[in-house]
Amino acid sequence: MKLPGQEEFEHSSAHENVLAEELDSGLGPGPSLGGPSDTDNGESGVSKDPLLFIQLNELLGWPQALEWRETGRWMLFEEKLEVDAGRWSAPHVPTLALPSLQNLRSLLAEGIVLLDCQAQSLLELVEQVISGESLSPELRGQLQALLLQRPQHHIQTTGISSCRGPNAFRNVSFDEDTPMKLQNPLKQKLPPGAEAAAVLAGELGFLAQPLGAFVRLRNPVVLEPLTEVILPSRFFCLLLGPPTLGRSYHEMGRAAAVLLSDPQFQWSVRRANNLHDLLAALDAFLQEVTTLPPGRWDRTARIPPPKCLPSQHKRSLSELQEVTGLSRGSAAQARDRHHHGQHAPSPELQRTGRLFGGLVQDVRRKACWYPSDFLDALHPQCFSAVLYIYLATVTNAITFGGLLGDATEGAQGVLESFLGTAVAGAAFCLMAGQPLTILSSTGPVLVFERLLFSFSRDHSLDYLPFRLWVGIWVATFCLVLVATEASLLVRYFTRFTEEGFCALISLIFIYDAVGKMLNLIRAYPIQRPGSPAQGCFCQFPGPGGNASEWTSTKHKDTDVLSVHLGLVNASLLSPPECIRQGGYPRGPSCHTVPDIAFFSLLLFFTSFLCAMALKHVKNSRLFPSVVRKVFSDFSSVLAILLGCGLDAFLGLATPKLLVPTEFKPTLPGRGWLVSPFGANPWWLSVAAALPALLLSILIFMDQQITAVILNRAEYRLQKGAGFHLDLFCVAVLMLLTSALGLPWYVSATVISLAHMDSLRRESRACVPGEAPHFLGIREQRLTGLVVFILTGVSIFLAPVLKFIPMPVLYGIFLYMGVAALSSIQFMKRVQLLLMPTKHQPDMLLLRHVPLSRVHLFTAIQLACLGLLWIIKSTPAAIIFPLMLLGLVGVRKALEWVFSPLELLWLDELMPEEEKNIPESGLEPEHLFSRAGNEDSELMYQPKTPEINISVN
Amino acid sequence: MKLPGQEEFEHSSAHENVLAEELDSGLGPGPSLGGPSDTDNGESGVSKDPLLFIQLNELLGWPQALEWRETGRWMLFEEKLEVDAGRWSAPHVPTLALPSLQNLRSLLAEGIVLLDCQAQSLLELVEQVISGESLSPELRGQLQALLLQRPQHHIQTTGISSCRGPNAFRNVSFDEDTPMKLQNPLKQKLPPGAEAAAVLAGELGFLAQPLGAFVRLRNPVVLEPLTEVILPSRFFCLLLGPPTLGRSYHEMGRAAAVLLSDPQFQWSVRRANNLHDLLAALDAFLQEVTTLPPGRWDRTARIPPPKCLPSQHKRSLSELQEVTGLSRGSAAQARDRHHHGQHAPSPELQRTGRLFGGLVQDVRRKACWYPSDFLDALHPQCFSAVLYIYLATVTNAITFGGLLGDATEGAQGVLESFLGTAVAGAAFCLMAGQPLTILSSTGPVLVFERLLFSFSRDHSLDYLPFRLWVGIWVATFCLVLVATEASLLVRYFTRFTEEGFCALISLIFIYDAVGKMLNLIRAYPIQRPGSPAQGCFCQFPGPGGNASEWTSTKHKDTDVLSVHLGLVNASLLSPPECIRQGGYPRGPSCHTVPDIAFFSLLLFFTSFLCAMALKHVKNSRLFPSVVRKVFSDFSSVLAILLGCGLDAFLGLATPKLLVPTEFKPTLPGRGWLVSPFGANPWWLSVAAALPALLLSILIFMDQQITAVILNRAEYRLQKGAGFHLDLFCVAVLMLLTSALGLPWYVSATVISLAHMDSLRRESRACVPGEAPHFLGIREQRLTGLVVFILTGVSIFLAPVLKFIPMPVLYGIFLYMGVAALSSIQFMKRVQLLLMPTKHQPDMLLLRHVPLSRVHLFTAIQLACLGLLWIIKSTPAAIIFPLMLLGLVGVRKALEWVFSPLELLWLDELMPEEEKNIPESGLEPEHLFSRAGNEDSELMYQPKTPEINISVN
Repeated sequence: MKLPGQEEFEHSSAHENVLAEELDSGLGPGPSLGGPSDTDNGESGVSKDPLLFIQLNELLGWPQALEWRETGRWMLFEEKLEVDAGRWSAPHVPTLALPSLQNLRSLLAEGIVLLDCQAQSLLELVEQVISGESLSPELRGQLQALLLQRPQHHIQTTGISSCRGPNAFRNVSFDEDTPMKLQNPLKQKLPPGAEAAAVLAGELGFLAQPLGAFVRLRNPVVLEPLTEVILPSRFFCLLLGPPTLGRSYHEMGRAAAVLLSDPQFQWSVRRANNLHDLLAALDAFLQEVTTLPPGRWDRTARIPPPKCLPSQHKRSLSELQEVTGLSRGSAAQARDRHHHGQHAPSPELQRTGRLFGGLVQDVRRKACWYPSDFLDALHPQCFSAVLYIYLATVTNAITFGGLLGDATEGAQGVLESFLGTAVAGAAFCLMAGQPLTILSSTGPVLVFERLLFSFSRDHSLDYLPFRLWVGIWVATFCLVLVATEASLLVRYFTRFTEEGFCALISLIFIYDAVGKMLNLIRAYPIQRPGSPAQGCFCQFPGPGGNASEWTSTKHKDTDVLSVHLGLVNASLLSPPECIRQGGYPRGPSCHTVPDIAFFSLLLFFTSFLCAMALKHVKNSRLFPSVVRKVFSDFSSVLAILLGCGLDAFLGLATPKLLVPTEFKPTLPGRGWLVSPFGANPWWLSVAAALPALLLSILIFMDQQITAVILNRAEYRLQKGAGFHLDLFCVAVLMLLTSALGLPWYVSATVISLAHMDSLRRESRACVPGEAPHFLGIREQRLTGLVVFILTGVSIFLAPVLKFIPMPVLYGIFLYMGVAALSSIQFMKRVQLLLMPTKHQPDMLLLRHVPLSRVHLFTAIQLACLGLLWIIKSTPAAIIFPLMLLGLVGVRKALEWVFSPLELLWLDELMPEEEKNIPESGLEPEHLFSRAGNEDSELMYQPKTPEINISVN
Repeated sequence: MKLPGQEEFEHSSAHENVLAEELDSGLGPGPSLGGPSDTDNGESGVSKDPLLFIQLNELLGWPQALEWRETGRWMLFEEKLEVDAGRWSAPHVPTLALPSLQNLRSLLAEGIVLLDCQAQSLLELVEQVISGESLSPELRGQLQALLLQRPQHHIQTTGISSCRGPNAFRNVSFDEDTPMKLQNPLKQKLPPGAEAAAVLAGELGFLAQPLGAFVRLRNPVVLEPLTEVILPSRFFCLLLGPPTLGRSYHEMGRAAAVLLSDPQFQWSVRRANNLHDLLAALDAFLQEVTTLPPGRWDRTARIPPPKCLPSQHKRSLSELQEVTGLSRGSAAQARDRHHHGQHAPSPELQRTGRLFGGLVQDVRRKACWYPSDFLDALHPQCFSAVLYIYLATVTNAITFGGLLGDATEGAQGVLESFLGTAVAGAAFCLMAGQPLTILSSTGPVLVFERLLFSFSRDHSLDYLPFRLWVGIWVATFCLVLVATEASLLVRYFTRFTEEGFCALISLIFIYDAVGKMLNLIRAYPIQRPGSPAQGCFCQFPGPGGNASEWTSTKHKDTDVLSVHLGLVNASLLSPPECIRQGGYPRGPSCHTVPDIAFFSLLLFFTSFLCAMALKHVKNSRLFPSVVRKVFSDFSSVLAILLGCGLDAFLGLATPKLLVPTEFKPTLPGRGWLVSPFGANPWWLSVAAALPALLLSILIFMDQQITAVILNRAEYRLQKGAGFHLDLFCVAVLMLLTSALGLPWYVSATVISLAHMDSLRRESRACVPGEAPHFLGIREQRLTGLVVFILTGVSIFLAPVLKFIPMPVLYGIFLYMGVAALSSIQFMKRVQLLLMPTKHQPDMLLLRHVPLSRVHLFTAIQLACLGLLWIIKSTPAAIIFPLMLLGLVGVRKALEWVFSPLELLWLDELMPEEEKNIPESGLEPEHLFSRAGNEDSELMYQPKTPEINISVN
């Protein structure tokens, strides 16, 4: 069982992976073209070099008071000591002047190089270094004393609480338990096994000759006062000399430190045998440096750390290219990217060729993860996920329950919706291949059910028995699809299909949220000055009250009907009180509740904007990262709480969440089990196969597109998908719900994505300048299970839930829809339509596909989306499932309009398209892209984990 | 007179200045330490080198079909041709590999260098270049044919409409009128006098030896088909050779182009006499390049253009430092920054030593700008400014009018407020030294007037005559201050004082906006379910109606009073109709208007958020820049229009803007002229000097702090300030308004800043990658004048203005307060208090002042602000003017807490502090900041024009 505390280990091991990736030079400088090794999570058996902590100590104060002071340090990036401010600068990419590197090279070439030095302490080391120099004994003594002097370190003691972890304890084995160790918080951020390197540089007037020394220790030794962090030192570099014109020892020291912080140089110098190897490594570094022209870039500008480091794999590759003079065409690059993005076809999408072979494979693969599916859920984040998804599910159940009740004249209602959601959802979470999926009634299925009900009403059929047969047939068809491994067709669902479907579902969410809000406003009308007479009073049938007569007078200028009542026995009681006392509330404003409409709008916008803003708090600079993470993770819950608080504070009678409290079917007089025939003729059970065919297509598409979206490679799911098993579960549940007269359920895209997003795992950035990495999703069955159990229990939670105003939930729905819509690439391309060319972002696809072609692709997607929307809204909605299938067809037809390469950049390839990509850029166009490897930095970077619901 | 069309010339000449700055190398590579020449607007008489347009043509297709193709171009930054996409990349900082520069150097060293070549055409040029080579005649012919071949250019024809300008016509003199010229939109963006350089590079298999040639033409010649833009070419560089391992001619070509695009290299090579000079220039370039380590920076990453280019001045300086081995201490840097920021004390702050000497100087200085003060206003932007400021002024006049009416029991009212604002504002705009200032009633003066009125009421004095004498004394004191040039004391108003005052005024704005909104909500109460009986009906005194009796019954559980009326003659008419027909509206809800409170809140937030969002549209990527500029410039007006539209659409009875319609004093029975004594004893006219003294301090502080803020160097005002003249005008207007019984007026910080912000001038970015520059403010008298004339006329505009709902105006007030508050550095430091160290931005002051000291300074400012707020809100408000003066004292006292250097970074220096800064870093601390010139890039960059109202 993994306890919350263990989480920290998880983080730090992820951290190690990252470092491993970073130190990929362990593979050696020879190019390894076997595969993109830099994305495998340290699978290769090659031993990695440890991280180096490099520190620059400068000699200052010549000639008055000589003193060593730490002025810079390097782990991944450079941090400079801001002397005046007494703080470390923000980590930045180190920049060097070329002369300092050249000066360093010549100093080292003439200096002392000790490789595999045996020294056991700083004293021994210093003695060995100085003995190599031809110095007078007096000078030697002075120098030795100077080198043994304790340097001044700036230890920063703030802002580390968020990164404190058990690493501190794991490091104990490496060094002595001095009190110093606990003083420096940096130590706790370094990965275990880290080594130190000390660079000592400065101007020393009494030297006649410059003194350069480079030492590699055979066994790393803690050189006691030298480094700020107590770590065993591996390298020692000494750069001293008389003050000379144009030779800054400070800059040379920085150059040495930057060299040591370069993984490739470090790899070489760890293995160097002599001075020649050392200089060769320096020259190799020089060959690879990036130079920026002085007139266009200020050397003193600090470049913030890039989002991802250049991969060592690529460096090796470009080196090879330089040697062989080859450069690869854009087609080859595109293919690289393709394979890189897709890897090999995943095991769950390989055909077994046996009946139910895929299902068996799925079950076998999933079985071994089953215990961990529960243990992995023990993390506070899951609590937030449960709250968020539970509220979304309950709202969804109520909404769809209400809609179904309308559509089927009570054959299914809110109670059925709750019960069905709870039963089907919980069963799915327990059995399915992808338990992160949240089952729900979906829009397309609702539309279909409405049509089915109209049909059976128009032909006087008994609805529920008819529906049972449809369900039986659908389950049968689905089982056939499972048996024949038809789910493998999901490979034809490219991003084009996914985006079309996802955009449609998101738009339905947005449309519904706004639509329900408008309905609510209609239910609580706003009173305008010109609206009908606002009066309301309580009339009693008292004495004389009988004499009242209604006289309507029509105003001249308005259509307002004002009523003259004559003599009545009246009072000013509120309508409920009036009725209680035996009177009749009279007047048009007796039954309107003022202020509700606008207050609901305020709640709606407040909860929407609040959820949006809280989600963005994560990227803010204010507050410690823990606080920001809580705000961001609980954004929806906090937004709901804020809305409820506001509502409770003002105490207005806004419409609240109502959950059913009694456990019996909505339709009076029916039992829980649907009779198989009822009043229908026997042949209807056969005829039901026809609508069932359409419904099967719909269920298959709805279920599998969502499954494909959820199982995208970017989400780094470890436990794999289970397309066959998922469909099998849906089929079985179809049978169950049909028999019980409950609604039908398939995977709900938006809520499932919200579920996954609330379960994101990210590494914490610890080494200065390191960005947090997306680690994956907390894959488990428990959150879903709890959500659905809570949904079932909700019937008893009515007293608590009744405080949640509906407008707040609509606001959260709007947020979910907007978040899901705004994160798909399709929307970025739609924005391109409105963007002047020069403001367009540097998207990879814009570098390779002409803008007009990009726009054409976007326009086709927009047209498809429009068509789907129209079909969904008209009586032709019955062919909607076929139209979804049509999306795949349209994508197939696009092959005639776009070249395979264009499709590769704009979309993905369908299985048989892959062979159509030209082997090496044969088209003349591609001969020209000589500097085409320019985008490689984008190509090799790990695909961003864009979870569609994520707002970032 | 300057017509709108001329604006373009203004832009382009500003553009020239920028380029002049950029090409500052005209000053020569020798360091010029005379002064920071790079901020003067091209004042020096040294001739500038023209801008170079550099184009790289690559030879592609060897061995099949040889063809030249343009693959890159350089003006300020690099643009690369995206071959596949058929577009130019976004401009970026060029990056090079070191080997390509070294290869280029060796190729040039062995190649042909023709300086001052006399060729008149491409043919002649090619002949001269080839003649220098030892080639067989056959090869020579082939090569010549190849070089004369027309290259393929990619001409982008979109996205230029916004930059089209008269430049196109100014260029005509330089080249032939071919139809080509009009095809390339780039041509129109280049400044007049631009020259071209062509780099031809590629692999040519039939060459045995590499062929390198560098040509400088004595007279630039249009080399017809070579460059995409038809410009006279100055340089020609040819780099051809057989395909060799590790030698990319493409990269060498890029290196040559990048070299030519460097201003310093360009300067040298324009003046080079021989190959040696050329190579020396290349070596100098190499000495200055910035190198980035390969393991931490991917060379292929494209770096977007920096916000400002490194100044040539600084490059010369750092070169000098390298030669002399000197590095300057942080104190010297700080002083540099100080002088750089402040320049010499401006002429308007120099003491003349004569009575009224400053005033005379001000008038003399301003007189010569007077005609241009009207002509400069002819620009559409001024229209938006007038609308925006007019609405703000009118709202302010109404608000303060209402408050004054309350405070003085009608002695001054809304009409006086309108009249006074119009008269005083217009007079000030016509006469003042800084006509961008907007006069208004201000919070502090209002507080003082309220106290004065209470005093005279408590002592049964005749208020207006008493007030007249106070006014006379204040005017007298102010005239004495003008005569003695007391305004020179503004030099003691450092940023500390400005920020305290500005923050206070902004907070008052925010507080007032929110407070008025809450008052409005209180005026339209929300009806809660538990609130009193909601009934309302119309009762007629008809037959039997007399028999009605009121019976109150008290509910058990609530305090609600429900009324039983018995027999009445009732109807359901609306209350106004009821009264019209002779009835009486009865019931508690007859006089409440529902829905108004929440709708007002919605309008309030909508207009606030809309103004905020529209202001930010300027930074969006969507829409062409013209559209975005309109949205941003008119953000407040658009927000007001949206609010009005929403209000009109729903037609609710929200409270609207009401302007007086009748022209007579609010207090009945008084004439326009205040009698000098009234019922007061004669000695009161002398005693009035005491309150007048306090008021004079207040007026002086209020007026001059605002004036200092408005005249900051960052705003780049060309026409200078007029502190003495402004105070003189205020004194005269004081006299006038006191005599007429109108409110008193001083400069209003927030509205004046909003006025300036709406008149910002920015250059349009034309050369790719160039950022728009802040050019200054449209300094003129017309917008202010029109605003105040409109304010006066507003009495007749009531039928239009009555459609503006008050909540919308409150929203705009909130926006103005928030915008003004959020842009002062003080707020950034307040945010630092909440920010973990590692997330803090790289602010210059954080590099030099310890964080704890920064926090201490911020805390002191916060404490001062809190104290001011408390005093303003209590009866002690009478000493408020002294407290404002106290701010200067607190700042003075801070000299004991902070060192001068710290104050220099955190604030500015007061006049006598400047001599306290140590000449060269004497404190030991400063010996250590060896790499201290690191911040020079921040130090030398032009101060950002942060206009306080600006939201960016």
